[in-house]
Amino acid sequence: MRFGIPFLTTISISPTPSKTLSPFLRCRLLSALSAAASPSLMAASEDSLRQALAEKQTAIDARAEAVRAIKARPGASKEEIDAAVEALKALKVEHGAAARRLQAAVSSNGDGSSKEAFRQAVVNTLERRLFYIPSFKIYRGVAGLYDYGPPGCAVKSNVLAFWRHHFVLEENMLEVDCPCVTPEIVLKASGHVDKFTDLMVKDEKTGTCYRADHLLKDYCKGKLEKDLTLSSEKAAEFKHVIAVLDDLSAEELGAKLKEYDIRAPDTGNPLSDPYPFNLMFQTSIGPSGLLPGYMRPETAQGIFVNFKDLYYYNGNKLPFAAAQIGQAFRNEISPRQGLLRVREFTLAEIEHFVDPEDKSHPKFVDVANLEFLMFPREDQLSGQPAKTMILGEAVSKGTINNETLGYFMGRVYLFLTHLGIDKDRLRFRQHLPNEMAHYAADCWDAEIECSYGWIECVGIADRSAYDLRAHSYKSGVLLVAHEKFTEPREVEKLVITPSKKELGLAFKGSQKMVVEALEAMGEKEALEMKKALEDKGEVEFQVCPLGKLVVLKKNMVSISVEKKKEHQRVFTPSVIEPSFGIGRIIYCLFEHSFYTRPSKSEEEQLNVFRFPPLVAPIKCTVFPLIKTQLFDEVAKLIAKSLTAAGISHIIDITGTSIGKRYARTDEIGVPFAITVDSTTSVTIRERDSKEQIRVSIDEVASVVKEVTDGQSTWADVLWRYPTHAAPHADE
Amino acid sequence: MRFGIPFLTTISISPTPSKTLSPFLRCRLLSALSAAASPSLMAASEDSLRQALAEKQTAIDARAEAVRAIKARPGASKEEIDAAVEALKALKVEHGAAARRLQAAVSSNGDGSSKEAFRQAVVNTLERRLFYIPSFKIYRGVAGLYDYGPPGCAVKSNVLAFWRHHFVLEENMLEVDCPCVTPEIVLKASGHVDKFTDLMVKDEKTGTCYRADHLLKDYCKGKLEKDLTLSSEKAAEFKHVIAVLDDLSAEELGAKLKEYDIRAPDTGNPLSDPYPFNLMFQTSIGPSGLLPGYMRPETAQGIFVNFKDLYYYNGNKLPFAAAQIGQAFRNEISPRQGLLRVREFTLAEIEHFVDPEDKSHPKFVDVANLEFLMFPREDQLSGQPAKTMILGEAVSKGTINNETLGYFMGRVYLFLTHLGIDKDRLRFRQHLPNEMAHYAADCWDAEIECSYGWIECVGIADRSAYDLRAHSYKSGVLLVAHEKFTEPREVEKLVITPSKKELGLAFKGSQKMVVEALEAMGEKEALEMKKALEDKGEVEFQVCPLGKLVVLKKNMVSISVEKKKEHQRVFTPSVIEPSFGIGRIIYCLFEHSFYTRPSKSEEEQLNVFRFPPLVAPIKCTVFPLIKTQLFDEVAKLIAKSLTAAGISHIIDITGTSIGKRYARTDEIGVPFAITVDSTTSVTIRERDSKEQIRVSIDEVASVVKEVTDGQSTWADVLWRYPTHAAPHADE
Repeated sequence: MRFGIPFLTTISISPTPSKTLSPFLRCRLLSALSAAASPSLMAASEDSLRQALAEKQTAIDARAEAVRAIKARPGASKEEIDAAVEALKALKVEHGAAARRLQAAVSSNGDGSSKEAFRQAVVNTLERRLFYIPSFKIYRGVAGLYDYGPPGCAVKSNVLAFWRHHFVLEENMLEVDCPCVTPEIVLKASGHVDKFTDLMVKDEKTGTCYRADHLLKDYCKGKLEKDLTLSSEKAAEFKHVIAVLDDLSAEELGAKLKEYDIRAPDTGNPLSDPYPFNLMFQTSIGPSGLLPGYMRPETAQGIFVNFKDLYYYNGNKLPFAAAQIGQAFRNEISPRQGLLRVREFTLAEIEHFVDPEDKSHPKFVDVANLEFLMFPREDQLSGQPAKTMILGEAVSKGTINNETLGYFMGRVYLFLTHLGIDKDRLRFRQHLPNEMAHYAADCWDAEIECSYGWIECVGIADRSAYDLRAHSYKSGVLLVAHEKFTEPREVEKLVITPSKKELGLAFKGSQKMVVEALEAMGEKEALEMKKALEDKGEVEFQVCPLGKLVVLKKNMVSISVEKKKEHQRVFTPSVIEPSFGIGRIIYCLFEHSFYTRPSKSEEEQLNVFRFPPLVAPIKCTVFPLIKTQLFDEVAKLIAKSLTAAGISHIIDITGTSIGKRYARTDEIGVPFAITVDSTTSVTIRERDSKEQIRVSIDEVASVVKEVTDGQSTWADVLWRYPTHAAPHADE
Repeated sequence: MRFGIPFLTTISISPTPSKTLSPFLRCRLLSALSAAASPSLMAASEDSLRQALAEKQTAIDARAEAVRAIKARPGASKEEIDAAVEALKALKVEHGAAARRLQAAVSSNGDGSSKEAFRQAVVNTLERRLFYIPSFKIYRGVAGLYDYGPPGCAVKSNVLAFWRHHFVLEENMLEVDCPCVTPEIVLKASGHVDKFTDLMVKDEKTGTCYRADHLLKDYCKGKLEKDLTLSSEKAAEFKHVIAVLDDLSAEELGAKLKEYDIRAPDTGNPLSDPYPFNLMFQTSIGPSGLLPGYMRPETAQGIFVNFKDLYYYNGNKLPFAAAQIGQAFRNEISPRQGLLRVREFTLAEIEHFVDPEDKSHPKFVDVANLEFLMFPREDQLSGQPAKTMILGEAVSKGTINNETLGYFMGRVYLFLTHLGIDKDRLRFRQHLPNEMAHYAADCWDAEIECSYGWIECVGIADRSAYDLRAHSYKSGVLLVAHEKFTEPREVEKLVITPSKKELGLAFKGSQKMVVEALEAMGEKEALEMKKALEDKGEVEFQVCPLGKLVVLKKNMVSISVEKKKEHQRVFTPSVIEPSFGIGRIIYCLFEHSFYTRPSKSEEEQLNVFRFPPLVAPIKCTVFPLIKTQLFDEVAKLIAKSLTAAGISHIIDITGTSIGKRYARTDEIGVPFAITVDSTTSVTIRERDSKEQIRVSIDEVASVVKEVTDGQSTWADVLWRYPTHAAPHADE
């Protein structure tokens, strides 16, 4: 078992520090895992190609030796020599072909270069049209920090508005808004202060820092992709290293770096041993310097610490969900992959609190019939690909742990596809046992495929009672729920009675924490302790707030099972946490929405973002067909009515050709263009189909509102209004 | 002249570090300034009261002496003694009355205690109903950090949505979204690293930190309010200290603290000398520790550094405005005043870039007829109160510097009053010359009166070209605009020709910066330099990026005025900056919206927030009148139709009395309540009037949508539907 911390979800650590913790898992891009999805097939063909290449090499070596021997032999005929050389040449040609076949097979993906080219086209458009801007560009920027420029910012605020509607409003969630600056004690309780680290190495001469796992992975991938003389055994070894990369301890990583003699990529200097670097931005609260703080690495903790108040606000009833949208911060060692791995980002998180004994969901029926790509852990382990499953069946078969988790998976699927994410490039991947924290009941990531591979964009985890318990421990404030019984129930109840006197003598100032830890024991743990005390007279006991094991003697605590009448049940709720990386979703959306089409003259390719109206940064443009005062005035009148209707728009009276104006706005994904070609009616053009309808000036704002608000589709209005048969001249 | 930094606006500092900078001005709560608004009247009555009290004391002393003399005189009659004692008693009664009159006059405000009581009632309701929560409460909180709980968070997101609509959408602004983490170089250029400080003193024994000006002010206010024996001269001195508090240097502040023997309030220990404490949260970017960064103290800098790209995005045209909503951070020394002075807050800022030679605004006519409270600097200085003025007149008379500034004042007025801010407790106060940065053309604060006094909530400043110039200097990237002439113009042009050879010899590596600084000189500066070089042969010259004065000789630069044909004008745009403290606006809105009314039984006072529907956290509630399955189902049906219409609502099927359910939701400001009392029609009750109308079930969602979207008012629908005459039983 291991205790990984997925990228988007609340930190997942072991509450028992005695266990060895692996470095946490974060976004797995074309990761070992997915590369290993069908290892047998891949490996087999690659292996035989390597072997074929090695055989050709051997044959060449032998033939070359033969040629040399012939040449050295006195009296060898020219014909004999020529024939031997020709045979050698033919072998070399065959070797070249074999090398190319192997090269193609080992390249990280067959269409790698076309993916790169596609990404470059998208990113060029995004940067040129200011969807985003490297932050502080005039000062040469800072790695991992990006601004959203005007269209990017509008897309983001549309995505967030829809998120609020789809989750907060529809599910009556309690939205909160907590500060980013967080005192250390909170992140100590959550485990981030101690465990939220990546392993780092330093160039021993220049001090430049690198992520240790990145260097090792790059080395192995480089070898696999570029060294065609690699033996099958060596290739298998490198693949294994990549597969287990996330599980390696600092020592193991260090040993591998040494073994492969991996050096600083920029200088070739030797590297330090790997050591953990905490990824939180540290600061100090107040002027005294005595209150350390951090910029929160996630928004979830703000909800957990407010559980008591929120439970009260909800009328002391379960289940309920709290939600938060806000900035989070991770001081990455060396950010890569553009907008996907950044140092500051927007998270939208939901913490749905449920009774651990009842994880059903009343609205599950609404999503039970959805079908989408799932990738259960069994299929990952057996090398099967992701497959389409019906959500209701996945829950009833137990593939998905419970209804509430399943319900959120369904809601997340609807959210993402509604935004414009391609459903065929969206899958829900279940965490493998070694990725999941030991307390987690189940965990699925919504992964979206883009040019970087499958990207974790939403994590949906059933985290059981871990977080609330951790804060109860640390703060001393009980974060629990109550179920009042209509009639008192007779229950077998575990009674834990710490002897304060004996504990006080043994532990002095720490007595209180030991008492609390004893009282907070679960039934299983307590019964094991009871047995151990009876059998051996003493037992080791982990007291989390003390951070160590203490030895308890028999006289320090009495544990018994008694029958009692109870009027209520007191328990720590479980939490189901869907956590959305908004920036990642938006980046994937950019890729899924981007396409090119030839200009009318077919001389160039024009860029288009096919954003749905919901997401489009600007809903509509207004163009006078030709530059006249009359048309300009009509255009301004229409712009005014669009503003009144709350529709974002651009009015362009520059007099550039209409085709160019269309192309310019297609490139930022404006779905509708109004062209003023008369004083009574105008045309509305739809971006992707380029179809046009004719609408009277009085109606145009309300028609655009209808199709951008989602009340109607373009198809709906297309038959209600006359189509404009002759598209404007230069379209 | 002084160079203050108002709370909300971009830092205002002198670009010439040789000048003495005063500690900056921030929010002035019941500040010396407004207290000094009508000093003559106040001071006169207080003075005469002090004098009357002193005279009574003198009379008492004399009479007491006389009594003692009579008593000591052998043979004084009992009657004589009694009469003298009676006279003394009468004098003491008069003294008591005089002391009470003085006490009333000197209390910081006459109705101070009722304001306190009102605030306490508001704050109690806000905290109890989770509008906000002290952050990390279970860990005993952190001063100056607050969470918005569910209703507060909803109010905030409504305010921000309206801000986006009112400013970004209606004015076609370019909204951007930049990170909070900011590298030092950016904030060095803006002046924050060097000047964004408050003066702090430390308890010399415990190390506890205090704001030096707070201690001095508290001391003076305490003396004025509580020491009735204060002489008129002393009282005047303390008042003067309060009035000039913000202008005092560290040395002057220290001297005053020493003079009055002010000690640490918590311990009585001596205090250190005052020293500047930088208010930015510091952190470190990346793992090396070599790239210092700060959490931004304002959002404006993110816009300034992007000017070049945004100008390009706008088609290289002026004017245009960029906007940003986001978190900002100030590490206050000792936060006071609840939600008004916090360490992390949401700012919404606009940077409107204009040609400095044309600050007209095409839409000024739309606001020119607005009338509202203005407080021009002349009136403040002459002791007049704020007065209602017509915006158009204030601009045409020159009270407000220019149309664009005036336009934004009008738009801010509309924004705030639309949210529900009481227009009679809203004024626009012009900065006094000593509050404003030397480069600022004009500056007005929208101040809202609440129980803490007049609070600066929006700053609207014409900052001229300062910020863009500062970043041009520091980054080396020109942040300028171009005006292309239709025909070339003959202009007298200043030609500055630095001699690179001579400058290179004199300044070596710094030569480039000297050359750039010379080339960036304004006309006035250059002509002065020309004269000085001709007269004296050398001149001192401030090179900002070098941070020092250099001495230039005549042979190092030639300056002349030549006639030239120019095809364009290149200039640094001016910026007009409306900057909104969202949390402050929301807090004032809470106070302005709060009232109480008796319950039906008149046994208790019920709390109500009269939020307009636009702002209300929840738009509507749904209550079955009595608990039956039938009514519950109707209620759920209505709830579903409300969700579909995007209307936030609460459904309450607890069966509590309807009056209690109304009271509960009035207290969080829900404007409309739907009561299900039949299966065909329901009543809608309006919160403040308690009027009810009867509407069919099919229509109810659309009626509620109409009145919450602002398409109709309650008055509009009131006559369209039958009123429900008999209010529900226990309302």
